[in-house]
Order: sequence, then C-alpha cells, then structure tokens
Amino acid sequence: MEKAGENLIRLALDVMGGDKAPEAVLRGAEIARKQFPDVRFLLFGDSRKITPILARFPELEAISTIHHTDEAISDEEKASMAIRKGRNSSMGLAIRAVKDGHADGIVSAGNTGALMALGKLILQTLPGIDRPAIGGDMPTTKGYCVMLDLGGNVHCDAENLFEFAVMGHAFARALLGIERPSIGLLNIGTEETKGNEAVQQAAAMLRESDMPLNFIGYVEGNGINTHAADVIISDGFTGNIALKTVEGTATMIVTLLKHHLKSSLWGKLGALIARPALKKFAEHFDPELNNGAIFLGLNGVVIKSHGGMGERGFATAIKLAVRVLRNRINEQIVSEMVRSGHLLAADASTRPEEHA
Amino acid sequence: MEKAGENLIRLALDVMGGDKAPEAVLRGAEIARKQFPDVRFLLFGDSRKITPILARFPELEAISTIHHTDEAISDEEKASMAIRKGRNSSMGLAIRAVKDGHADGIVSAGNTGALMALGKLILQTLPGIDRPAIGGDMPTTKGYCVMLDLGGNVHCDAENLFEFAVMGHAFARALLGIERPSIGLLNIGTEETKGNEAVQQAAAMLRESDMPLNFIGYVEGNGINTHAADVIISDGFTGNIALKTVEGTATMIVTLLKHHLKSSLWGKLGALIARPALKKFAEHFDPELNNGAIFLGLNGVVIKSHGGMGERGFATAIKLAVRVLRNRINEQIVSEMVRSGHLLAADASTRPEEHA
Repeated sequence: MEKAGENLIRLALDVMGGDKAPEAVLRGAEIARKQFPDVRFLLFGDSRKITPILARFPELEAISTIHHTDEAISDEEKASMAIRKGRNSSMGLAIRAVKDGHADGIVSAGNTGALMALGKLILQTLPGIDRPAIGGDMPTTKGYCVMLDLGGNVHCDAENLFEFAVMGHAFARALLGIERPSIGLLNIGTEETKGNEAVQQAAAMLRESDMPLNFIGYVEGNGINTHAADVIISDGFTGNIALKTVEGTATMIVTLLKHHLKSSLWGKLGALIARPALKKFAEHFDPELNNGAIFLGLNGVVIKSHGGMGERGFATAIKLAVRVLRNRINEQIVSEMVRSGHLLAADASTRPEEHA
Repeated sequence: MEKAGENLIRLALDVMGGDKAPEAVLRGAEIARKQFPDVRFLLFGDSRKITPILARFPELEAISTIHHTDEAISDEEKASMAIRKGRNSSMGLAIRAVKDGHADGIVSAGNTGALMALGKLILQTLPGIDRPAIGGDMPTTKGYCVMLDLGGNVHCDAENLFEFAVMGHAFARALLGIERPSIGLLNIGTEETKGNEAVQQAAAMLRESDMPLNFIGYVEGNGINTHAADVIISDGFTGNIALKTVEGTATMIVTLLKHHLKSSLWGKLGALIARPALKKFAEHFDPELNNGAIFLGLNGVVIKSHGGMGERGFATAIKLAVRVLRNRINEQIVSEMVRSGHLLAADASTRPEEHA
C-alpha cells in the first residue's frame, strides 16, 4: 500500500454505497482524478464488479487499489444492524482504513445512519467533542455559507451547540477560505430573550468565550440564504428541516418559473434568447454541484455523498474531502477547543495521519 | 353601533398598528371595502389622525365608526408590558370589541407578541384548546398549503401538536376550500422512528384518533413547498425557522435570477420579451399578496398583518379575516374537538357572535 507522501491524499471509497453504485462512484473518482493529481484511491467493495469498470479507466486503475469484500450495507439497513453486521462491509472496511492509517479520509454515498454509527464506533469522536454533527454548505446571495447540524442530533444542549460553533468555524475556514468567519445561531428572533434554553445558553457561552470566534448572535431562517452569517449553527432537527425547506422552495420556484415561461409564446421566446443566462442561474441549484456533507467531530474525515447522486455529484463529494484534508480541519478544531479551555492540551491528539 | 345582520361582517381594526399606520390601514380598508360590500369597520386609534384620512374616502367613512384612544402599543413593547398597559391601546380596545360582541374579528399589523398576549388575556382560548398557534398559508407547486405553528410556541408537547392538527384541519377547509385536507407532521424523515418524542407521540395520537382527520404521517422540510400535505403541523420554533427559510430562499433565488438576466445583453433582451411571464411568476412572491396570519385557538378571530405591509398587504389580511369568519372556523374547531373526545359537548361554546 502506498505511503502518504508530502502532498498525497489517500481516499477510501465505499464503492458499493448509493443508488448508482458502483458505476457512479468509480466514474466520479475518474472525474476527480483529473482535477486532483495528488489523490490516490482505496476502493472497497465487490472486486468482481469493480474490476471490469476500472478496466475502462486505466489511469484511475493505476492510482487505485481494490480491497475486496462481499458485504455491503443496504439503504434500508438500520444503524443498530449496521453496527452489528457492518464491520466487514465496504463502508465499514473503508472507515477502518482511516482508523488504521491506510487512508486519510473516506467518502460514501451509502446509508447515512449506518455511516454515522460506524464512524462513531470505529473512529470515535475528536478529543473534547461530545457529539459529531453533519455539516454542509448552502448557496447564498453572496456565495456560500456553511451550516450544521443538518440532521445528526435531534436533541442538542448548549454545550453541543457551542462545540458545533467551534467545528463550524474550522469548517468555514477550510471550505470558504475566510480567516474569521462570522457565526450565527439559528433562532426565531434576534432579541436575547428569543428561543429555547439551549440556544440562549449557547449564545451566552459564545459571547463569553475567549476563543477568536466571530459570534454575531442570532440569525433567523431568512438569514441562511441571504448570508446573515458565514456559519449557521442549529440543532439537528431544526437544521435538517431548514436544509430540506431550502430544497423544496428552490424546487417550487424553478417549477413556477418554467411554468410561467412555457405558458405563453413571448415567454418561450424570451427564455430561448436568455437561455445562457438561465443556464448559469440553474447551476446554482444543480444538486450534483452542491453535493457532499461532512461528519464533523469524528476523529477522521468522513464525507457523505447524497445517495441519489450520479458521477458528477460523487466527484463533488471527493472534492469536499480533498479541501477538508488539505486544510487539516480536525487539527484546527482540536486546537480551538484547547484554546477555549474546553480541552486540556495534553488530551489534544488527532489521527496522526492528518498531520502527514 | 350597527348590529350584526345575516351577512354583515364587523371587523375591528387596530388603526395604529404597523410601520405604515394609520395611512396603510385605512387605505387597506378602502381596498377591502370594494371587494367585500358586506364588511363594516370599527376603527380604533387616534381620531385626530384617522378623521382627516377617512375624509378622503367617504364610502369607507360611511361604513365605519371611529373609537378614539390616545394610547398605542409600540413595536418595541414587550408582551408583559402590553398586558399591564395595553388594555386601553388601539389594539387592546379592538380585541375588547370582539370579546364584547361588538365586532366579529380584529385585524392588527401591530406588535405580534403584544397581540398574542392581549388576545389570550382578553379572549382566552377556545374550549379544549390549551395553546393558540399562529397559522398561515404558504405557496406550493400546487397552489397553497396551510402551516402552523409559525412562531407562537417555542416548546410544544404531543397534545399541543394534536390540537394544532385539529385547528389546521378547520383552517385549511376555510382557506383552501378542501373538504378533507391532508395533514402532515413536519419531521426529519418519514420513518416512524424519526424525530423527537413530541412528534412521535402526536403521530400516534393522530393515527389512533376517531376524528375524520386525513393524517398522512410525517412530511420533511422539502414537502412544504412541494405540497406533500395540505396542512403542515410543527412546533413554533421549527415552524418559524421553516417559514423564514422559505422567505430567504425565495429572496436569494429571485436575486440570482435578476443578476444572471442582467449580466448579459441576451439575458436582458430575453427578460424584456418574457416580461409578462416573469411578472406573473413574481406575483407568487409578492409579500403584499401573501400577507396575514391567524392566531388559531383564541376564542375570537384575531388576524395579524405583517408590520411592514402597505395598503395592499393590509387589504389581504382583511380578506383573510373575512374568509375565516364566513367559514366559522372556531365553531368547526370546537366541534372537531368534541368529536375526538378531547372536549365534552357541554363545554363546547364559542363566542356567540360567530354564529351570527
């Protein structure tokens, strides 16, 4: 197995995860290979299915190793079952490769609950982090913001939300390239007395923190897409509802726009003439270009691709893994936790591979 | 004071509430007057300000009575202060008129917290209803759905959510004209095990209920605008975040669309040609045409107009009041509560005026 070099990034791929696996996973890797010459792939899954596809992409084959397993976790599998039976699955073995230092991170389009459960079981959480959260990016009027938790934790206390803010800070630095990203807590008003106890206490903790966090207070739902903050923090219940509400609203608006443009001759003609502009507009909502979430707080980089994605989408998830690894965000999270006094320096060790 | 006739609807207006009061309130009443010849207005506020404006609209003046008060509740006033001092304000007196049977309902663009607090204090809740909820309508791919709670209650238990479903059922029948509206509980997945305890228990209550409610189970955030159900039920924290997320997403998308159309000559030309179609499209997001929320569960009809609305928006809120009153939704809510066994028939009395 290839050793991690100065710049090499070794990614474990769950080749059997997702609706369009294994084809979309391998084709996605082929797209990413061209963009990131420093990436090497460890392919976990059924070699009988992988080998013939890989044969069509000799350059990908040359930078990949196949790790055969007959087992795979289905989309319907419950997390509890995944924990019992999933260790030898393509997903479980891919996570194991990160734990054992053979890979720097893993990308999977498989079952979200199973990925989180196996991720926690095998990699455990970062020192100082109680619960991992699902983080992702969202389009805004000014570009992108990052948001967490998008559905990992139904119930969150103030300490959880505080940890999410620290993780979101590191994630936004890595993903958006902003030195001191602004952080907002999602709430139903901007006054101090608004919201539930967890949000109010987390706000107090963030205001009083010695960390260099740029906490700007509460942000309302309309602040997500209008970029009221670079980082939006919420519990996983609210965050998931907000994430999917954005999806639904975008679907509705694009549907209505098409409907009205198609309802008249002038509409059709105008749309034809403005087609390049409308195409650029539509790219903002292309799910394949907006794919990939990170399980922040695990002691190892775990990236989740949406299960329905095709090859372009899977390549976008690989791109996220690369950006996150290049920016060593787990190291950043731990050092911020130490700086905040929430973690003793002596306990602050992450996976050594991340320092490679 | 005019007596309630067979079809007459007497509305109390808080003329001093809202950023553009009193002008927008009175002009809004003038717009509504033309649409609804059966409406009469009781105008609560500073007569020195009301009289000169009203003089410009003699037909409105003819169907209105002015009820002078010097006091008004500001937007910054806390709900607790409104309770202590607000009884003689334009808002408090207008609510009082409903309580005393002089008006059938009240419309206010004033302070939401004060309106809810004074509404509860003066009107109290409907028999069988523990807590009022804020209900409103949302544009969808198929037209409109109704949603509650949009921000009245941060914490909700299963019983509250159950009551919201009963109220949402009646509201959707009134507003959407659907005989048996489908009802969905907002959650982070559609499987039975998803979400928090309140949602899970409410789902069980709704499934086991003898009521003729058309409960279809859980609905995810993307189901709101894609019309997964006619009625969307959630706690007030999540509901408010979802409502405002829709607003923010719509703002972002319209901003991006304009940006891309303006970025090229072909885009500009196409937009010019497709202008009538784009205008119809934009109407879906016109806040003045989507204005008005109802405080469901109060023993009297209280309609809240957004504080920033102009006259067209206030007229839309009046329209909501008229539809709600014509459909006698409070009567419907109470009879459904009786039918479900959640209320004894002997306790099921609403404001007598509503039967007028």
